[in-house]
Amino acid sequence: MRPIIVLLTDFGLLDPYVGQMKGVILREAPDACIVDLCHEVVAHDSVQAGFLLQASHGHFPPQSIFVSVVDPGVGSDRFIVLAQRENQFFLAPDNGLLSFLIDEPVSWWRIDAQAFAAGNTFHGRDIFAPIAARLALGATPQAFGSRVAPDTIIRHDLNWAEIGNPVVDCTVLHVDRFGNCLVNLRAEHFHESPRTWLLDDGRSVVKAAAYAELAPGQIGLLAGSQGVLELAVNQGDCARTLGLAPGLNIRLTRKDTPHP
Amino acid sequence: MRPIIVLLTDFGLLDPYVGQMKGVILREAPDACIVDLCHEVVAHDSVQAGFLLQASHGHFPPQSIFVSVVDPGVGSDRFIVLAQRENQFFLAPDNGLLSFLIDEPVSWWRIDAQAFAAGNTFHGRDIFAPIAARLALGATPQAFGSRVAPDTIIRHDLNWAEIGNPVVDCTVLHVDRFGNCLVNLRAEHFHESPRTWLLDDGRSVVKAAAYAELAPGQIGLLAGSQGVLELAVNQGDCARTLGLAPGLNIRLTRKDTPHP
Amino acid sequence: MRPIIVLLTDFGLLDPYVGQMKGVILREAPDACIVDLCHEVVAHDSVQAGFLLQASHGHFPPQSIFVSVVDPGVGSDRFIVLAQRENQFFLAPDNGLLSFLIDEPVSWWRIDAQAFAAGNTFHGRDIFAPIAARLALGATPQAFGSRVAPDTIIRHDLNWAEIGNPVVDCTVLHVDRFGNCLVNLRAEHFHESPRTWLLDDGRSVVKAAAYAELAPGQIGLLAGSQGVLELAVNQGDCARTLGLAPGLNIRLTRKDTPHP
Repeated sequence: MRPIIVLLTDFGLLDPYVGQMKGVILREAPDACIVDLCHEVVAHDSVQAGFLLQASHGHFPPQSIFVSVVDPGVGSDRFIVLAQRENQFFLAPDNGLLSFLIDEPVSWWRIDAQAFAAGNTFHGRDIFAPIAARLALGATPQAFGSRVAPDTIIRHDLNWAEIGNPVVDCTVLHVDRFGNCLVNLRAEHFHESPRTWLLDDGRSVVKAAAYAELAPGQIGLLAGSQGVLELAVNQGDCARTLGLAPGLNIRLTRKDTPHP
Repeated sequence: MRPIIVLLTDFGLLDPYVGQMKGVILREAPDACIVDLCHEVVAHDSVQAGFLLQASHGHFPPQSIFVSVVDPGVGSDRFIVLAQRENQFFLAPDNGLLSFLIDEPVSWWRIDAQAFAAGNTFHGRDIFAPIAARLALGATPQAFGSRVAPDTIIRHDLNWAEIGNPVVDCTVLHVDRFGNCLVNLRAEHFHESPRTWLLDDGRSVVKAAAYAELAPGQIGLLAGSQGVLELAVNQGDCARTLGLAPGLNIRLTRKDTPHP
Repeated sequence: MRPIIVLLTDFGLLDPYVGQMKGVILREAPDACIVDLCHEVVAHDSVQAGFLLQASHGHFPPQSIFVSVVDPGVGSDRFIVLAQRENQFFLAPDNGLLSFLIDEPVSWWRIDAQAFAAGNTFHGRDIFAPIAARLALGATPQAFGSRVAPDTIIRHDLNWAEIGNPVVDCTVLHVDRFGNCLVNLRAEHFHESPRTWLLDDGRSVVKAAAYAELAPGQIGLLAGSQGVLELAVNQGDCARTLGLAPGLNIRLTRKDTPHP
């Protein structure tokens, strides 16, 4: 099976950075299949990158190699780490991006970066890309560094909220291009949600199974496609409607309880 | 020949949605060649998507599988349809996106969506992607649903204008990144155009064979590359110059006739 | 080895233009591996495109075919040229984009565009793409035109600055998505830089080996990853901080000399 290398970065597409990473990969592994997961992670936001990777990796083939470069510490003494979970590899700076894997059955390696002729500003191209290419060609992780214990990996867990009674205080993890606001409530708690919530400004939020169930302009709470609940407005922009952005908090109060 | 799957969506590239679709496709059809046609369709605008697909499909290999996901009705009772024209397949929600195929020699199937373990918010990943992958592997359309008659397909035809005398009233279909305004006049009518038109504000529009024929700042009418006429300003932004946007109307009056 | 075709354009990703080029390539060369170098070159800016290509081509496999379409003269009498350097091919309009190759050991051909059934507005799809596909299939350059001498190629060299004493006047070549300002100083002159520079407004610029060496808000001068020096703010946006944009000039004065 053709090896698959999946790229997740905060590089955007205005520059030749992603293209240069692909060039380096193909120079070493010309048959690699390179897939862009997303390059529009908020600059330097390794927490958002970790969320997107956590939500995405299960949809990829079992042999995928995920290369995540959201790396404000590039050129400092931060480490680069490689995780293996079954046959999937995860390569990232050791800055919390891979926190979601720490409690999983995963093996960890710390990369020996000295082995690469790299500058100090673009390890995505100079270190991550050649490692990914060699993994795609069948190299084993120990070729790139030493095994380390999970508790040496830097950890910045997402802070999960619960569906409380009478209120839930949640945080926006991600706003998508439709303005849907993905929040830190796991989708598996959807069934615990009441039919209707109130926002602090008195507007209602309706539990809905699909966007199209909502009337135009109506705000809904849905079990979205990324493993979390999301606030959405049917054919509207929920983030703009509610003034939400990643990192902002929002309080929902059950409508069947007295509103403060 | 390697199967080619072409993606057209309104997902943008800020999110992992397109990447997840590719992951699902490659999980089932690891040798598929996936091509991005465009992911920046205006959100929910199935008419624009249909225009872009109509203008593009002829440039792709005869065995291409076009997957178009502009799907505001996802999770509702809207259907998903599959069209086959010679060896090309077209998969899309039944919302008018494939109208341009209805009068063509095409066979149609309505997808049995119940066969997929899908959520209600992202059928592009949960239904469209696996169908495309299986078509790429050689599955036949009847594996996914029942044959239906063309007149059951939802139809939203583009409204084509004609080169009138003395005026032509046309509508902007698409504004490209250069500010060129593609209008609803078929390129084959280009020869009917007079040398010069007048806009309602008195400015001239000159028939031109190439952008570089126009003086700086001059507004031209060209037979563009997408099968329609376009208004353009050489090395300038015509949409900004004229305040145009998709859906807006514009009236051209032949200059050799008295201007109102 | 799978032939690799690398695309560099100013088409952006809002339109189906890049996708249509890929369709045409795959129709002729179904096994080609197509890589996007960058599609966000400033519209019509062949100088920026040349800089990005110069900074990037060395990272790609030796057999790559680079197709650069920043082509404001499309449809005029401008030529299309093909350069071969070892086993890499470079196809571009003859508008200065390939200036960086003129003094290199390169062979040049002028394309016979009449051989293609092309419109006047999109030679990227109608001429460049089929030529690239046929080169990928093994065609030789002479199949597409006649050998020409390097001094017939249009030349717009980048204007390189030097690290002067006490001042250096440089120009911004490119601003990346992080706001880093790449300037026309070759990275190999980095060692000539003093520890500290002053901007005309009195702010300091510190020579730094890595972004993370800089304190928050501090402005640094680094040897970036693209072969040139860059001004950067650690986890900040240098272009916004200093009001810089491509083409703007900036003067640095050595701090150990009296400031004017």
